[in-house]
Amino acid sequence: MLDLVDVGERSVDSYRGVAPDQLLEQLREVSRKLQGARVLHLNATPYGGGVSELLRSIVPLLNDLGLKAEWRIVTGNQSFFEVTKAIHNGLQGGLLDVSPAQQTAYLETSRVNARAFSGEYDFVFIHDPQPAGILAFRDKEAARWIWRCHIDTSCPNRQIWSFLRPFIARFDAAIFTLPDFIPPDFPLSRIEIIAPAIDPQSPKNLPLPEPIARQLLEWIGVRTQRPLVTQVSRFDPWKDPLGVIHAYRLARAKIPELQLALVGSLALDDPGGWDIYRGIEAEVEGDPLIHVFTNLVGVGNIEVNAFQTLSAVTIQKSLREGFGLVVSESLWKGTPVVAGRTGGIPMQMPEGVGGILVDTVEECAEGIVTLVSDRERAKALGASGRDRVREHFLIPRLVRDELALMSRLAAGD
Amino acid sequence: MLDLVDVGERSVDSYRGVAPDQLLEQLREVSRKLQGARVLHLNATPYGGGVSELLRSIVPLLNDLGLKAEWRIVTGNQSFFEVTKAIHNGLQGGLLDVSPAQQTAYLETSRVNARAFSGEYDFVFIHDPQPAGILAFRDKEAARWIWRCHIDTSCPNRQIWSFLRPFIARFDAAIFTLPDFIPPDFPLSRIEIIAPAIDPQSPKNLPLPEPIARQLLEWIGVRTQRPLVTQVSRFDPWKDPLGVIHAYRLARAKIPELQLALVGSLALDDPGGWDIYRGIEAEVEGDPLIHVFTNLVGVGNIEVNAFQTLSAVTIQKSLREGFGLVVSESLWKGTPVVAGRTGGIPMQMPEGVGGILVDTVEECAEGIVTLVSDRERAKALGASGRDRVREHFLIPRLVRDELALMSRLAAGD
Repeated sequence: MLDLVDVGERSVDSYRGVAPDQLLEQLREVSRKLQGARVLHLNATPYGGGVSELLRSIVPLLNDLGLKAEWRIVTGNQSFFEVTKAIHNGLQGGLLDVSPAQQTAYLETSRVNARAFSGEYDFVFIHDPQPAGILAFRDKEAARWIWRCHIDTSCPNRQIWSFLRPFIARFDAAIFTLPDFIPPDFPLSRIEIIAPAIDPQSPKNLPLPEPIARQLLEWIGVRTQRPLVTQVSRFDPWKDPLGVIHAYRLARAKIPELQLALVGSLALDDPGGWDIYRGIEAEVEGDPLIHVFTNLVGVGNIEVNAFQTLSAVTIQKSLREGFGLVVSESLWKGTPVVAGRTGGIPMQMPEGVGGILVDTVEECAEGIVTLVSDRERAKALGASGRDRVREHFLIPRLVRDELALMSRLAAGD
Repeated sequence: MLDLVDVGERSVDSYRGVAPDQLLEQLREVSRKLQGARVLHLNATPYGGGVSELLRSIVPLLNDLGLKAEWRIVTGNQSFFEVTKAIHNGLQGGLLDVSPAQQTAYLETSRVNARAFSGEYDFVFIHDPQPAGILAFRDKEAARWIWRCHIDTSCPNRQIWSFLRPFIARFDAAIFTLPDFIPPDFPLSRIEIIAPAIDPQSPKNLPLPEPIARQLLEWIGVRTQRPLVTQVSRFDPWKDPLGVIHAYRLARAKIPELQLALVGSLALDDPGGWDIYRGIEAEVEGDPLIHVFTNLVGVGNIEVNAFQTLSAVTIQKSLREGFGLVVSESLWKGTPVVAGRTGGIPMQMPEGVGGILVDTVEECAEGIVTLVSDRERAKALGASGRDRVREHFLIPRLVRDELALMSRLAAGD
C-alpha cells in the first residue's frame, strides 16, 4: 500500500460567509452526481511546497462533499528523487538531460510504486512528474486518470519531455494552471485549465489578530510602528531580489524610515537558492532597515501571514511568473501589491485592482512610494484585490472546477 | 567589529499585569545604580536554541531599563564550530576528546574574534564555551567578565574540561542554572545560580486565541475535539520518547480516542537525533492516533504554543533533565504536566503543584489517565503551575537576578 496522509477534517460550511454563497452552492450542486466517488490524489511529499498545501485542503473538502477521497504518496530512494528533480527542472526549461541510468532509476521506482498501488478508485489525480510513471506499470482499471501539472512546462527541455511524454499519453486528461503552460506536442486532447487558489483557513491565510501579528514581527526585530514593505518569494533570479533591494533603496530616499523584509524558504538541496541568498546577504550587510528571513531561523507560515498582514505594501517583482500565489495571499489580507507585469499576475490583479503593475526597478520604486504615502489609495486597492481573490482564487472554486471535470469524465463527455 | 544582532525594542511596562508588580519594582530598583552601564552579551548564534531566545528578551529589556546593552556574535569556520560542538558535548560528559589540531582551531578562531572585539563595556557576558577563549587574547580593560554557562557541566569529560578551565579562570564570575551543574575543581569563587525563565511575549508563550490554536493543529491533522497529550522535546534518549509512547498506549487502553503528539526539533548536524526520530517513526508507523512533528515540516514556535495550549496534559518524561523549559512553558498555559522526577523538574513543579511527578512508565500512564479523566483536578494543577511560573520563572526575574549580580560586581562585593 502506498502511504496514506492523514488530513483530518474540513467542512464546506466553514467557508460560509468567507467564500461567495453562490460558489458554495455550485460546489454542492456539482458534487451531487459524484456521491461516493472514490478519488485518489497521489504526489511525492506530505509537507513542503504548494502541492501538499493544496491537497491538505482539497482532500478533506471532497470527503465533506460526499466523495471518498484519499491522499497517498509515492516513495523512492535518493536517486529517484534526484531524477524527478532533474525532470522537474527540465520540464521548466532546464538545460541538463537525464542519463540512461537516471531513466532506469525512474522506471524502477515507478514499477515499485505501481506494485504498491492498491485499492479501487473512480478518479486518480497524479500530481507533477514524480508519480507519473506508475501508469506504465499497471492497468487503469475502472478509473479515469488525470495528470495535474503544477509547473510551467511551456518550453521544456526536449530530451526530458520526450522521455516523459509517453507516460503522460496514457492519461485520460490533464490539468494545467495557465494555458501558456501546456508543452508543445501535448499528447492529450482533454486539457483543463484550473488556476491555483488559496485556503483562507490555512496557517498562511487565517485571520491573524493584529496584536499577535505585531508581537511575532517585533520578536524578530521588525519595528511594526514604522512602514514596512515585504517580498515573500523563493530565492530565485526570476523573483529579482536584487531588483527589489534597488527599488526599495530608491523609495527610501523619499521615505527615510521605510523597512524592507525579504522572506523566503531555503531548501538544503537547492545550491542555487543558497547562492542567491548569500548574494542578498552580502548586498544588504550592515543595513539595519533591511531584514532577510528564512524558514531556517523559524520564520514559517504564521510569520509570513504576519508580514503580509502588517506590510504597507508587498512586492512581487517577478521577471517571469506562473501564478503568483503570494500575490493572492497578500491581497486576501487587503494588502496591495506592487508586482511585475508578467505571467499570471495581470490576471490576478488587472489594471486598477489590487495594486500596481510595473516593468522596471524605477516603476517599482515609484509604486512603493505611491502606496506607502497614499494610504487611502492603498486601502482601496487592497480591498478591490481582496474582492477579486474572494471571487476567483479561493479553494472552493478550485474544488468546484476539479469536480466539474470529474463529472464530465464520468459522463463520458 | 563582531556582528551585532538587532533585537528591536521591548518594554518592562508591557509585562505589567503579567509578571508580579513587586518583581517589576525590584527590576527598576536594582537597575537604578546601573544607569548607562555598557553591557555586552556575546554568543555564537542569533537564531535557534535557548540562548538566543533568552538574549532576544534580555537585551532589549536592559536597554529599556536604562542600560546600554548590545548582543553580538562570534564568527568561525566550520572546523571551529565542530570543535565547539565537541567541547559542548564533552562538558556534558561526552566521551570523545578534542585533538591537538582541534585545540589549535579553537585558539586561532578565538584570537580572530578577540581582534574583532572592539567597543568599551562595563560588563561582558560570555555565553557557553564558543566565545570563552577570547579573554585569553585581550585585556579585560575596565569590564567585568561573566561566563554564563547554560549546560549541565557536573560531570565533564576530563580532558576537555582541562582544556577549557584555564580560559574560564580568567573571568570575574560565572553563572550556572542549577548548583548541581558546577563542574569539579571550578576555578572561580564568584558563582551565581540563576534559573532559566520564559518570556510570556515570545511566539512560544504569547496568549494564542483558542480558535487560532485549533485551526493550526487541525491543519496538520490533529483532532482538537478529542483528547490530546503531547511531549515537546528534542529527540534524545534522556527524554525517553519510547517510554512516552509506551505510557501513552497503556493510557489509551482506558481512553480509546486519546491522541499523542511528539513534537521536536531536528538539526541537520545531529545524526543521533535523526536515529532516534527514525526509531520513533518505526515504532508508531500505521498508528493513526500518534502524530510526530518536527520543525522540518513547518511545526515551529507557534505550533508548539498551540500544542501546549490545547493538550489535556503535556508529558515531560525525562530520565535526566537540567531545567525543563517546556515544563514552564506548558504550565504558563495552565496545562498540567506529567513529568519525570529528575533534575530541576521537582523545583519547577513541587509535589501538588502543576502536575504529577513520576518515576516509571506505569506511573506516567496512570498520571495521564488521571488528568485526562479528572478535568477539575487537571485545571487546578494547571492553575497552580501557572502561578508558580508567574512568581519564579518569567524573564523579568532572570533579568533582575543578572542586574543584581552586575550591581554587586560594580560595588566590588
